[in-house]
Amino acid sequence: MTDMLSGFPDSLVAPTPEAGFQLAIKLSRLGVKATQPDAEVLNRLRPKYSRDADALIASSQVVAIHYQTIAAANDYWREF
Amino acid sequence: MTDMLSGFPDSLVAPTPEAGFQLAIKLSRLGVKATQPDAEVLNRLRPKYSRDADALIASSQVVAIHYQTIAAANDYWREF
Amino acid sequence: MTDMLSGFPDSLVAPTPEAGFQLAIKLSRLGVKATQPDAEVLNRLRPKYSRDADALIASSQVVAIHYQTIAAANDYWREF
Amino acid sequence: MTDMLSGFPDSLVAPTPEAGFQLAIKLSRLGVKATQPDAEVLNRLRPKYSRDADALIASSQVVAIHYQTIAAANDYWREF
Amino acid sequence: MTDMLSGFPDSLVAPTPEAGFQLAIKLSRLGVKATQPDAEVLNRLRPKYSRDADALIASSQVVAIHYQTIAAANDYWREF
Amino acid sequence: MTDMLSGFPDSLVAPTPEAGFQLAIKLSRLGVKATQPDAEVLNRLRPKYSRDADALIASSQVVAIHYQTIAAANDYWREF
Repeated sequence: MTDMLSGFPDSLVAPTPEAGFQLAIKLSRLGVKATQPDAEVLNRLRPKYSRDADALIASSQVVAIHYQTIAAANDYWREF
Repeated sequence: MTDMLSGFPDSLVAPTPEAGFQLAIKLSRLGVKATQPDAEVLNRLRPKYSRDADALIASSQVVAIHYQTIAAANDYWREF
Repeated sequence: MTDMLSGFPDSLVAPTPEAGFQLAIKLSRLGVKATQPDAEVLNRLRPKYSRDADALIASSQVVAIHYQTIAAANDYWREF
Repeated sequence: MTDMLSGFPDSLVAPTPEAGFQLAIKLSRLGVKATQPDAEVLNRLRPKYSRDADALIASSQVVAIHYQTIAAANDYWREF
Repeated sequence: MTDMLSGFPDSLVAPTPEAGFQLAIKLSRLGVKATQPDAEVLNRLRPKYSRDADALIASSQVVAIHYQTIAAANDYWREF
Repeated sequence: MTDMLSGFPDSLVAPTPEAGFQLAIKLSRLGVKATQPDAEVLNRLRPKYSRDADALIASSQVVAIHYQTIAAANDYWREF
């Protein structure tokens, strides 16, 4: 098993849409760490991808896909 | 936690399909800010990506994915 | 708020699958305009992306994602 | 309105999974025609994209997204 | 109609998650054949894409999208 | 049939969100092996893609798509 998922949330339940978005960001980054667990390597890559429009758009897309999952898990934070 | 999500909406509920689309655009941009919070860097990137067809199509795709989430959250604004 | 969404539909309801597909095309283009509202810039880009296979496939994909949303909104135009 | 959707299906209902897949292929191609209606231009592009692995994979992905929509529209052709 | 879908499955029902995954792989490949039916051309492309990380990741993504469809068709192989 | 899916899980049920994420990572990698079963080739590719931001983001996206499937299969690990 991949064993670098430290800090993985116990639940997909989030109190607010914003907390859910933060969770989606976290899952996106854990997905990167699943392939590259070495934080030093990731830090060396940051200057490039964080100033590259295509990479920023692609990162936002991964967050959007995870946010679909988190929003469904929280029934879209709909108040009945 | 990523703490640059200022202005995050309190709810995914939107009164109209257009308001929902505006929300999807907002979430797409918040997803970019989650990786690059520095507005100056983003402004320097804008001339390039805003005149690049591939980047414009990719941005539209992120909005489309978030719009799926928002539309489902609002039950597709169906009137019963 | 992004204020270039003129002509945004009032509803996601469409009478036929084809009308729904037209709506998905419209939403895809509004997603591009959300990032680049200047029609002149978009027209200058057209000769390139409209003759580029990768861009045409990517555009078709954005329409496919929006069509998922529109089809679900119209319960897949199933006749009961 | 985009008026090049000649031959658009009247319904998303398909008798079999294979007929549904054919429909997904058709919708993918109509999505390309929505951006580039000129068949001559598309034919000139074909030699390149039909021998390019990345383009073939990307095309298959658009079919996969439309197939999700068609399969849901036909309740996955489940026999009760 | 595209007529190269020989061997298309009669049903999306699969006995196990693994059989469902095999089906998703098959659909992904049929999606490629829908654009390029010539097996010789596909074989000539294989040495390149099968040793290209980006192409391998993109292929895995198409399988993932089809697997969503197959898993939903089989109600996630949940035992009640 | 593709016969390199050794170690494919018997079920999509996972006890926790983290276990589900591990399963999504596994499925993503099995999707790569479906196209390139030769572990030696994959190992030779690793130094490149594991230090390439675009490839890392794309890998994270495949995990995100599979995680949607696994989360739905486990009803989002919601406690009733």
